[in-house]
Amino acid sequence: MSSNMTIARLRAAYAAGTLTPTQLMDDIRERSAQYTDRNIWIHQLTEAELQPYLEALEQKAIDSHPLWGVPFAIKDNIDLAGIPTTAGCPEFAYTPSESAQVVQQLLDAGAIPVGKANLDQFATGLNGTRSPYGPGRNAFDPDYISGGSSAGSAVSVALGLASFSLGTDTAGSGRVPACFNNLIGLKPTRGLLSSTGLVPACRSLDCISIFALTADDANEVLACAEGFDERDGYSRANPFANQSRHYGFRDGTLKVGIMPEAQLKFFGDKGYESAYKETLEKLRGLGLEFVEIDYEPFNEAALLLYEGPWVSERYIACQPLIDDNPGAIHPVVRAIIEPGGKPLATELFKAQYRLEALKQKCQAQMAGLDCLLTPTAGRLFTVDEMLSEPILYNSQLGYYTNFMNLLDMTSVAVPTAFTDESLPFGITLVGNYFSDRALLSIANRIQRGLALPLGVEPATEASADEEGLHTNPVSNPDWIDVLVCGAHLEGLPLNWQLTERGAVLKQTTTTAPVYRMYALAGGPPYRPGLVLDDKAGEAINVEIWSIPAAEFGSFVTGIPAPLGIGKVRLADGGAVSGFICEPYGLEGAEEITAFGGWRSYLKSKA
Amino acid sequence: MSSNMTIARLRAAYAAGTLTPTQLMDDIRERSAQYTDRNIWIHQLTEAELQPYLEALEQKAIDSHPLWGVPFAIKDNIDLAGIPTTAGCPEFAYTPSESAQVVQQLLDAGAIPVGKANLDQFATGLNGTRSPYGPGRNAFDPDYISGGSSAGSAVSVALGLASFSLGTDTAGSGRVPACFNNLIGLKPTRGLLSSTGLVPACRSLDCISIFALTADDANEVLACAEGFDERDGYSRANPFANQSRHYGFRDGTLKVGIMPEAQLKFFGDKGYESAYKETLEKLRGLGLEFVEIDYEPFNEAALLLYEGPWVSERYIACQPLIDDNPGAIHPVVRAIIEPGGKPLATELFKAQYRLEALKQKCQAQMAGLDCLLTPTAGRLFTVDEMLSEPILYNSQLGYYTNFMNLLDMTSVAVPTAFTDESLPFGITLVGNYFSDRALLSIANRIQRGLALPLGVEPATEASADEEGLHTNPVSNPDWIDVLVCGAHLEGLPLNWQLTERGAVLKQTTTTAPVYRMYALAGGPPYRPGLVLDDKAGEAINVEIWSIPAAEFGSFVTGIPAPLGIGKVRLADGGAVSGFICEPYGLEGAEEITAFGGWRSYLKSKA
Repeated sequence: MSSNMTIARLRAAYAAGTLTPTQLMDDIRERSAQYTDRNIWIHQLTEAELQPYLEALEQKAIDSHPLWGVPFAIKDNIDLAGIPTTAGCPEFAYTPSESAQVVQQLLDAGAIPVGKANLDQFATGLNGTRSPYGPGRNAFDPDYISGGSSAGSAVSVALGLASFSLGTDTAGSGRVPACFNNLIGLKPTRGLLSSTGLVPACRSLDCISIFALTADDANEVLACAEGFDERDGYSRANPFANQSRHYGFRDGTLKVGIMPEAQLKFFGDKGYESAYKETLEKLRGLGLEFVEIDYEPFNEAALLLYEGPWVSERYIACQPLIDDNPGAIHPVVRAIIEPGGKPLATELFKAQYRLEALKQKCQAQMAGLDCLLTPTAGRLFTVDEMLSEPILYNSQLGYYTNFMNLLDMTSVAVPTAFTDESLPFGITLVGNYFSDRALLSIANRIQRGLALPLGVEPATEASADEEGLHTNPVSNPDWIDVLVCGAHLEGLPLNWQLTERGAVLKQTTTTAPVYRMYALAGGPPYRPGLVLDDKAGEAINVEIWSIPAAEFGSFVTGIPAPLGIGKVRLADGGAVSGFICEPYGLEGAEEITAFGGWRSYLKSKA
Repeated sequence: MSSNMTIARLRAAYAAGTLTPTQLMDDIRERSAQYTDRNIWIHQLTEAELQPYLEALEQKAIDSHPLWGVPFAIKDNIDLAGIPTTAGCPEFAYTPSESAQVVQQLLDAGAIPVGKANLDQFATGLNGTRSPYGPGRNAFDPDYISGGSSAGSAVSVALGLASFSLGTDTAGSGRVPACFNNLIGLKPTRGLLSSTGLVPACRSLDCISIFALTADDANEVLACAEGFDERDGYSRANPFANQSRHYGFRDGTLKVGIMPEAQLKFFGDKGYESAYKETLEKLRGLGLEFVEIDYEPFNEAALLLYEGPWVSERYIACQPLIDDNPGAIHPVVRAIIEPGGKPLATELFKAQYRLEALKQKCQAQMAGLDCLLTPTAGRLFTVDEMLSEPILYNSQLGYYTNFMNLLDMTSVAVPTAFTDESLPFGITLVGNYFSDRALLSIANRIQRGLALPLGVEPATEASADEEGLHTNPVSNPDWIDVLVCGAHLEGLPLNWQLTERGAVLKQTTTTAPVYRMYALAGGPPYRPGLVLDDKAGEAINVEIWSIPAAEFGSFVTGIPAPLGIGKVRLADGGAVSGFICEPYGLEGAEEITAFGGWRSYLKSKA
């Protein structure tokens, strides 16, 4: 087996009979031994510990278990039944009798746990060095940091020791290590994945996150991991428009917000600076249109996370240890968390007021965009550099990431380039909560378009475009296009039914030359009927409006008989939702095809 | 002019030329003088102060100004330009140069300010007695409390000194006084009305509220007062489904959650206890179906408001006064607010965690219901009783109200009965945020059905059912009914397109006897076409499914030609959204009308 273990490739090998889960896990154990310098595992499962999972697979049909035999790593602040959870602090360790809700769902789907992965202690860090189990080291070059706090989770997937992994992401811990190790890093909508069985960092903000080689895999893992959990007060049910079937290959022109050059920071990393420029150029070539936004309100929100009273949440999570055995806490982590016991509730309320005001400003920046795009991190540090300035350099790693959960946004880190030193670089796509599938679909388009190698796989091996990634085209799920040809045209008597729902005129065009148009009997309002006749029809002048998807239903119900909404053929051969007419509605109607459209007909009557 | 000043009645009088705004304001000033014992006004506008507003009306067309000449009272913690805002504390007073955003919008719509109304100081109270301007006294009997904190706002409307008024509602201040004075009290969705120009109580929870004689008037005032305000961090844009055009007369059977008897509390008030029982009986007669819910999680959330760290928000609002002149604060108010300086941020986070968990439980209780219904208050106290136990009795007033804003819910207090002592009693309808119009539409149905007098108007005068209230029927805006007749029927191949969107089967029925059915060419999936023929059609077996309104649009776009969604006629003479077929789709189709429906046809083929 190659180190590239996408889910599709594994399943193909299982189906072909060229691989068994036991063989795979033996192979992983063997290859793992080559990478002890990376400090990936806090606990790697022994053969004996794996046995029950391998045996359970024998009872499960591969076809009905989407992760059958797929190995995954678990950040060691998430419970796996029977294995200690340390959160990167041996003195904190406990052995849970139940797996975390998300872990259990993945196991139920057939996934195999490889081990508990190293992390910045209590998930407090973005660099990976803050661990008594040794600093996380980069999959591409062990002199460099892995990124954190989900250090081992990322490195294991990049090195092919797991197909995917669970991290957590409060401040950027699921994205920064993705950037540094050439992975997709999905920071899902807050509450989409249950936090039951997760050691809290900032409980109001924590998200279990997903590292994967491809957007396809991240989507598949998300589908297995998500779900409302009544035991988790922050859990939220996923709306229909954000469910797995809305994942695909996002088509059309994308309007993407980027930061003005003056607000970008690379902290002296020339490699990352040019990788970002190169990225923008390539993405323009893939059909992304860039619009500058003002990053200042995002940055101000980001600063609240560590400079404001949210550190009190970390204090709550560690209080027993702070009270009883403070020396057990990593000194840098302790320096960050201990002050969290002091802020007053009044300070927190004031900070929350400020945050609400910033949310408004950030929302205003994002209006009308498909997503934002930023570098995921500004600089890739060496381990030695990081240890020399453990707080300042860490905070530089959060410049593009810290705002996300405070603003209730969703994001996907996507690999996009390599530096001249062959180190990976990536960007982060940012959207509002419940835009997970929309962002993953854009990530899919980028990943297919750039065709980079996956993880540490050499460029000669299969890259994203050869992996058979999802090619089902999906459009922006928030909008539906509707073709209008009569009283709903701009400026005509029923157009308000579109505009009051927030619809915008997208295009003035014609139908395919296969329609007859009739002026129906009755009115006002006077209304036309479009009737398909592919022998004697004409091209009719029409408008296409984009209407918010959630409002389209009530628009449809407001249309009186004999009209309704079906499909209308366009000149380019496609079809779009639009007005159709029942057969009986043509009784007493006057054919007006020759006018070429409703406006010309009206003019003739005036 | 009678004391019943509904907006419709005033506008009719203006239109008929039987009244002018100047006459009305003179009349109000005269009648106001009879009620000085109620301590309604902190500042009633003088003739000179009114003059600019009356002059401005001359420049405004009545037709384009929905509140033209309509007098309103303003709780004295909301700014009116040029008039001091005291918040019930003379030492706190300041004179704003701008009106609050909401006040300005009402003035722009033509409303006339009558005065600044008395309140429990800093809106801290539900009883109305905590004011240096004298205790608020009930419109029906001055021995009884007005309720608070929006004391004068409610009493002025009940006594016909204003058509409507602005209150505020953090804990129940917009509902309790409505109950005690026979008014509609709308506590809108948090953020629907701007808080710019409002003295904060608990800034994260505060809502400007509306007192009115009828649900119609509350809807109209809301329409003028609502709107996103970028200066207010808590402001939220109102979604389409909650806008004014979705207000009406709510029809159909309503499923309403009520508290089990063991959880009801009337604190010894037998009059209120029987008024509540009588209310339920009458509402059953109006088509409300009651289902018991568990109030415990709501109650636990309610207790957080005063027993938890949210008091720190009140401390923030009053801190300058607490620091410089604490003696200026009403002693009871001070006893409540001063401890708010002590809680830690860790305590607030823990309380917020608890609140999130309670939110889940409360949401679970509300699933599938049109709304909840509780008494608005359990007991109507006399002023003397309240002054004898100012904290305990006040907290009893919040038993049914304190949870609302913490849980981000919306509510409307509705008058429903009078006690044997002729004192008013009412209930509160509770829904999720953005259900304002849905609740007002239910309130409208209740108000029309019960036909109680409005405000203090004698029963011989016009009551709600004679006021020409809105009669446009509206259904639950969250659901849309769709008629299916083919592959979408329960158990058939495309039914998943309904169920995956959360649709539920509502009814198995037949169309009006005016349809022919055809088996269309092509497939699978095999599909029928319904074609209206009112001369030779039959009744066809169909199903009606209810689908979440927000998901109906994507369902429609998924339907391939030649089918679409139009209107289908039902046996009872009505029509519902359902499948229609384009004329060309019938080419090569087989008529199957004789089978009476798709299932019978399929059976014949099997």
